[in-house]
Amino acid sequence: MRKVFLAILAFVATVGSAQEKAVLVVHGGAGTITRSGMTPEMEKQYRDGLEQSLRSGQAVLARGGSSIDAVETAIRVLEDNPLFNAGKGSVFTHEGKNELDAAIMDGKTKKAGSVAGVTIIRNPISAARAVMEKSAHVMMVGRGAELFATKMGLEIVDPSYFWTERRWKALQRELRKEEQQKPIGTVGCVAVDKNGNLAAGTSTGGMTNKQFGRVGDAPIIGAGTYAENESVAVSGTGHGEFFIRWTVAYDIAALMKYRGMTVQQAGDEVINKKLKAVEGEGGVIALDAKGNFAMPFNSEGMYRGWIGSDGVPHVLIYKD
Amino acid sequence: MRKVFLAILAFVATVGSAQEKAVLVVHGGAGTITRSGMTPEMEKQYRDGLEQSLRSGQAVLARGGSSIDAVETAIRVLEDNPLFNAGKGSVFTHEGKNELDAAIMDGKTKKAGSVAGVTIIRNPISAARAVMEKSAHVMMVGRGAELFATKMGLEIVDPSYFWTERRWKALQRELRKEEQQKPIGTVGCVAVDKNGNLAAGTSTGGMTNKQFGRVGDAPIIGAGTYAENESVAVSGTGHGEFFIRWTVAYDIAALMKYRGMTVQQAGDEVINKKLKAVEGEGGVIALDAKGNFAMPFNSEGMYRGWIGSDGVPHVLIYKD
Repeated sequence: MRKVFLAILAFVATVGSAQEKAVLVVHGGAGTITRSGMTPEMEKQYRDGLEQSLRSGQAVLARGGSSIDAVETAIRVLEDNPLFNAGKGSVFTHEGKNELDAAIMDGKTKKAGSVAGVTIIRNPISAARAVMEKSAHVMMVGRGAELFATKMGLEIVDPSYFWTERRWKALQRELRKEEQQKPIGTVGCVAVDKNGNLAAGTSTGGMTNKQFGRVGDAPIIGAGTYAENESVAVSGTGHGEFFIRWTVAYDIAALMKYRGMTVQQAGDEVINKKLKAVEGEGGVIALDAKGNFAMPFNSEGMYRGWIGSDGVPHVLIYKD
Repeated sequence: MRKVFLAILAFVATVGSAQEKAVLVVHGGAGTITRSGMTPEMEKQYRDGLEQSLRSGQAVLARGGSSIDAVETAIRVLEDNPLFNAGKGSVFTHEGKNELDAAIMDGKTKKAGSVAGVTIIRNPISAARAVMEKSAHVMMVGRGAELFATKMGLEIVDPSYFWTERRWKALQRELRKEEQQKPIGTVGCVAVDKNGNLAAGTSTGGMTNKQFGRVGDAPIIGAGTYAENESVAVSGTGHGEFFIRWTVAYDIAALMKYRGMTVQQAGDEVINKKLKAVEGEGGVIALDAKGNFAMPFNSEGMYRGWIGSDGVPHVLIYKD
C-alpha cells in the first residue's frame, strides 16, 4: 500500500516537473541595436511583437501541444510582423527582390526541413515544415521549393506582399553607400514541451543588398538551426557566412555532448570566444531538454525573450 | 660548426617529412557496388577514372601547389568523366533535368564556398571556389549562382551538355519503378599539402528522380564537406538527407577535437555506428593534417583511392 502511494506521489511529481519545464525562447535578430538608436515608440513595438510571439507559442505548449507546433506558431507571428526581417518585413537583395530562407528541426526524431530563396510563400517556416513532413528531402530551394509549397496547399502571395517601405529605403541607402547596412535579421524560436522534446526553427529575409541566390545560415541544418533531444535546440542570428563556416548550432551541441558543457558554457564558447575572435557578429538562443537556456550574443543588442508555464513573457533587447 | 650542421640536418628532415605527408584522397560515390554487378571492362573504366583524378591532384601537390588547388583539380577530372555522378554524368531530377551541387573548403582559413541547383556551369567545383574567393557569401543557389559564375568567367555550357544516355535510362527505370535507384552519387576529394594545410571538396548531381529544387549534403558545409587544419578534411557521399540531419562532416571534426578520437575512430563512429543505426547509407573520406586518413562506408562499396608523394595511385571499390 505504501509502495503504491509512493508510486502515485512519484508520478505526480514527474508530471508536475515535466509540465513545469515547458519553455519557449524566441529571438528577433541581433546587431547594432542600442538605446540611443531607439525611440520609446519603436521599443514598445518590438517588445509587443516579441511578447505576442512568445504568448502564441506558449499557448500551444500550455494545451499540451508539441514543441514543433509551438516553434512554428511563434515564428509565423514574427514572419507576419513587418518589424522583423523574416516573412513580411524581409530585407531586399541587391536586385530589389525579397528572397526568404527558413528551417525547422524536430529534436526527438532529428527530422528537419528547410527552404531557401523562396519569393511567394507567405510563411516560409511552414514550407520548411512541409519539406520535413511531406517530402523525402531535407532542403529545397527556389522555384522547386515554391512549386512544392503550392502543391502542399500553403498560402501563396504575390512577391509584392513582402515589399515594405522601411526595408526598401534601407536598400537605397546601402546602394548609395550612405550607410553600411549591417546584417541584423532573422527570427527564431526554440522550445521544449511537456514530454521533454526539443524543437528549433529559424526564418529570415537574409542580408540587405545580398546577391541574388545567396543563402545564409538560417536554412542550413547545423549552422543556423539545430535540435536533438540528447543535447540542445539552437536558433542563430547574425552574419550568416560565419555561422556556416563555424557550424555554429551543431558546435554548441557537440560541446555539450562531447565536452560536457552546459548550454550557457557551450553558447558562450562559440559566440563569445570562437566567433568573436574572427569578428563574426551575432548570437543564438539555445535550450536543453531540461529547460535550461542561454541567449549569448556578441553584437550590441539582440531582440530576445522567453516564456515558461506561468505564461509571463520576458523580453530583453540590449546588452544590459 | 657542429650546431650549424645539425640545424641543416634538422631543416632537411623537416622539409622532407613535410613533403612526405602530402596526401590526396578521392571518392567517386558509395552505394550498391558489388563484384557480381560489375564487368571487368566497367571496373577498369572506374579504376582508370579514379587514377587519373588522383594523379592530376597529386601533380599539383608535387610541384608545391596548395591543397585547395589539388582538390579543385582532382574534382574537375571526375566532373568531366561521365562515369561519375557529378558534372557530366550527373543523374536526372524527377522532371528530367540535371541540377548540380558542389562545395569547397580551405582548412587553413575556414573559408568556404558552395553552389546548389545549378544547370549550366560545366565545373560546379570551380563555381564553389569562385563563391569562396570572389564573393562575400558562402552559398549561392540557382539562377543567382549561375549569373555569378558567368560574371566570373567560368565555362558555361548548354544544359544538354549534362545529358547522358545511361543516367536518362536510370531515370526512366526509376519512373517506371522497375528498379529503385539507390543514391549512389557524388565525387569528392580531401588533400593535405606540404605546408600541412587541409582542403576538402565535393560535387554531385544529387539523387536520381530527386524533386526539382532539392539540395543534398554535398553543398552544405558541415554535412557533406568540411575542412579545418586543427582537426580534419572530410568529403561525404551517400543518402544526403541523413548526412545533413547528422551534420556528418562536422561531427567527425568534433569527435576528433573534443573527444580526442583519431580520424579512423571518428569516421567509424559516425558512419558505422550513428548512420548505420538509422540506415543512413554512405561513406566519407577523411584526412588529418598529419596525413592520416580513413575511408569508412556502410554501403556495399565505395569508389575510392589515395595517392602520396611517391605518385603511385591506390584504388579500391568493394568492401574487401
